[in-house]
Amino acid sequence: MMKNVNLSQLKKVEIILEGEHQEFATDLLDRAGVKGYTIVNNLSGKGRHGFHEGHLMFNEDAVLIMIIAAIPEELVEPILEGFAPFFNEHSGVVFVSDIQVTRLVKFKN
Amino acid sequence: MMKNVNLSQLKKVEIILEGEHQEFATDLLDRAGVKGYTIVNNLSGKGRHGFHEGHLMFNEDAVLIMIIAAIPEELVEPILEGFAPFFNEHSGVVFVSDIQVTRLVKFKN
Amino acid sequence: MMKNVNLSQLKKVEIILEGEHQEFATDLLDRAGVKGYTIVNNLSGKGRHGFHEGHLMFNEDAVLIMIIAAIPEELVEPILEGFAPFFNEHSGVVFVSDIQVTRLVKFKN
Repeated sequence: MMKNVNLSQLKKVEIILEGEHQEFATDLLDRAGVKGYTIVNNLSGKGRHGFHEGHLMFNEDAVLIMIIAAIPEELVEPILEGFAPFFNEHSGVVFVSDIQVTRLVKFKN
Repeated sequence: MMKNVNLSQLKKVEIILEGEHQEFATDLLDRAGVKGYTIVNNLSGKGRHGFHEGHLMFNEDAVLIMIIAAIPEELVEPILEGFAPFFNEHSGVVFVSDIQVTRLVKFKN
Repeated sequence: MMKNVNLSQLKKVEIILEGEHQEFATDLLDRAGVKGYTIVNNLSGKGRHGFHEGHLMFNEDAVLIMIIAAIPEELVEPILEGFAPFFNEHSGVVFVSDIQVTRLVKFKN
């Protein structure tokens, strides 16, 4: 039995895009109500990523970042909708997966 | 039919915390019986991460790391319990998700 | 209702191996029909990773990379089969998990 930890079922969103668009992406997350995120810097990438048909997704020299956020399920849809016009113009991709996150419970005694 | 590979159902644990606490975290994993891990260095982060209420999770200048480990399900609970007192004092978060991992089978002939 | 985005159910493959073998791995992915991938550079790792029995998986000084690709389920098996002989000789691991990926639909009007 876990006394000090709880697991919350959330969605993990991983947004891969060119680093120059970081502020656009984090502003969008902020406005959607996402309370925090973690960024992996200096990724490299290649190709169409298997699901972005018709043109190269990234050229090999692009500096990419991955923004990771854990969000309630009801935020997934507005965030994807918010990114859709951006991804009509720019390269990138969003992964969505199920995760459990520790919700920390303070000792109270 | 896969002759040379097997997939084991494990849990992926991703621990994001300030880099200065790396040794604490890896020691805890070692003592819990985790046999290996991979570390992503030099992350950046911001905000309360959506589930750590009441104070900022990271300030923007903190150097963060993410420790990734693939562990049997029965280790998830003791590890989360082990981290609970730490996260009462320090910023960070743990993600838990389902993964399949290749268990490598040597050719024998 | 999501008008501009669709989610496709795919498999996320995360391949962790020593950086010197990057080209081998990406060539294998290319030949398997994977259309793109993202690479996280300069990971560090330790230990047997919990599933590679009998010898250390990485020494602590190895420069590791993680190659991330989102692929259709039917490509998982041939890719794992393709990597099996490599992992008989070299350290590394492959994680497989379920993800949903935005399939971007262009505005047409």
